[in-house]
Amino acid sequence: MSTQTNQQFRLASRPVGMPTAENWQLTEEALAPLEDGQVRVKVLYLSLDPAMRGWMNEGKSYIRPVAIGEVMRAGAVGVVTESRSPRFKAGDHVSGPFGVQRFWTGQADDQGGLAKIDPGLAPLPAWLNVLGMPGMTAYFGLLDIGQPKAGETVLVSAAAGAVGATVGQIAKHLGCRVVGIAGGADKCRFVVEELGFDACIDYKEGPIGPGLKQHCPDGVDVYFDNVGGEILDAVLTRINLKARIVICGAISQYNNTTPVRGPANYLSLLVNRARMEGMVVFDFSPRYPEGVACLAQWLREGSVKHREHVVDGLENFPAALLMLFEGKNFGKLVLKIADA
Amino acid sequence: MSTQTNQQFRLASRPVGMPTAENWQLTEEALAPLEDGQVRVKVLYLSLDPAMRGWMNEGKSYIRPVAIGEVMRAGAVGVVTESRSPRFKAGDHVSGPFGVQRFWTGQADDQGGLAKIDPGLAPLPAWLNVLGMPGMTAYFGLLDIGQPKAGETVLVSAAAGAVGATVGQIAKHLGCRVVGIAGGADKCRFVVEELGFDACIDYKEGPIGPGLKQHCPDGVDVYFDNVGGEILDAVLTRINLKARIVICGAISQYNNTTPVRGPANYLSLLVNRARMEGMVVFDFSPRYPEGVACLAQWLREGSVKHREHVVDGLENFPAALLMLFEGKNFGKLVLKIADA
Repeated sequence: MSTQTNQQFRLASRPVGMPTAENWQLTEEALAPLEDGQVRVKVLYLSLDPAMRGWMNEGKSYIRPVAIGEVMRAGAVGVVTESRSPRFKAGDHVSGPFGVQRFWTGQADDQGGLAKIDPGLAPLPAWLNVLGMPGMTAYFGLLDIGQPKAGETVLVSAAAGAVGATVGQIAKHLGCRVVGIAGGADKCRFVVEELGFDACIDYKEGPIGPGLKQHCPDGVDVYFDNVGGEILDAVLTRINLKARIVICGAISQYNNTTPVRGPANYLSLLVNRARMEGMVVFDFSPRYPEGVACLAQWLREGSVKHREHVVDGLENFPAALLMLFEGKNFGKLVLKIADA
Repeated sequence: MSTQTNQQFRLASRPVGMPTAENWQLTEEALAPLEDGQVRVKVLYLSLDPAMRGWMNEGKSYIRPVAIGEVMRAGAVGVVTESRSPRFKAGDHVSGPFGVQRFWTGQADDQGGLAKIDPGLAPLPAWLNVLGMPGMTAYFGLLDIGQPKAGETVLVSAAAGAVGATVGQIAKHLGCRVVGIAGGADKCRFVVEELGFDACIDYKEGPIGPGLKQHCPDGVDVYFDNVGGEILDAVLTRINLKARIVICGAISQYNNTTPVRGPANYLSLLVNRARMEGMVVFDFSPRYPEGVACLAQWLREGSVKHREHVVDGLENFPAALLMLFEGKNFGKLVLKIADA
């Protein structure tokens, strides 16, 4: 493949349950010359996120579905190789919704979500993690929706994941008791020993009820939910008066072929005058600079750490995506497309 | 029975599913002489409420369970027959948690919830309805938790019930489009023609989806939920961005012997950045005077109406309570115990 040829993963059909190879089509096309105002970006790292599963479904959601035949949507970082816009020059590092492909070509305006990034502040993959969408999700979801106060107990599921890890570290920084839920002893150890959570419950060891009782002796004031399902239900039995549950995701339910499992214990919201609220990070885009500045400061101070799990090669996209749903990634899952 | 004998319904055992005659014990005892600071109230009207079913269960809730052998808890209005407190005199009309019995005897202090009421403002049964707990529930639940704005669509389940009827009328007063959900053509007609709702969906006619689509063409901004179950699930598919769902009750689930049905569509909260929040009226007790004053004003103006369904006779308490769960009452269900 010459560098003047693009390669793309397009959505070939909509999955039922877990995505399979048949849902994807790998296409190649020549790169057209740039038009006025356009830039071309060589994609370096792609972000693989649970939300991608939802974008593959038909039907109304917080964002339009990826169309059949369309390049799969993905956040990414890359480097500008050519520019016919005064706003960017070759060599600039940028982030944006470049999609699952080797090159992105588009208008260099404000609408596309194209933004310069500073690789001096943090390595490129971190711009898909703590300084990217997951970091913004954690920052605004916890602070604006969860509203934790010092001394409160904050519980986070998928605690070793990109969002969960950042949520927990921000909550520690605020003086909360922070408990994670993660799958497997390695992840739990990472969450406590590396990220500094007070405790971590291993959901693969059995029902989390006893762990919740042990590690959240004063109940749960804020639950940041990335998983849904029976874990959400178990947590509902331990929430405190005026608790806040942030519904950020429900990875346990995304590949269901049967109906989603609703939280049977939702009446605990009534008993405890508690609140369950959904959040979508895009709503906070005007405030991303605030989030990036704050998290970059915490990175420098060492109070927030990050970990990426890098898989190499565009061709591995379909298999790498499945790792998210099998809990096989350890840290923010990133697909490396090319060297800088 | 002499007037100096009390009669009480006590909880004999905890029900599994729907309460039965065996769960109650009717007892009689002589009235003891009053102690200093005490008053005696002759109970005139008892409030029958869905929440009573929850109080019969063991286990942690927003209020302690009624103990086995204890007089069943109930809100009521009555008249003071004797007083050894300077705060009340014989002939005063009062409301309070007098329980399912003919006479209540207790301290006339602030703790007990004893409050003077003015039968000139509204007939006594209305003090168990629009000027009592249901009215306070509607007022604070809608205004403080639901926070409707003029022009928004407010949907209310159990719309012909005590809480629902008041919620809808307050929302109309605020300039909202108001749609009810109720069981049967008579109730629906009452809700629209008497109470002034814009529309009412009859859930006994089949799934409410088509009715929601027809009568809430711009979606639902505030849903005041008294019923839970599949109605809550159907509504979740029609909520708007930033919608507020007030979880006030779940009468469809109170007598379940199988687990409560969780709202399978709860991820609509995420997609719509919406909120589901529980409310318990007792939290607002310091502000009841505000609620009573405001609702009394609306009563005088005729912008809020009320309807009570009066069943006669203490002995009919067990059967009357069941009417709530069978949807047989039409208006706020009240048990008349004695003439004034």
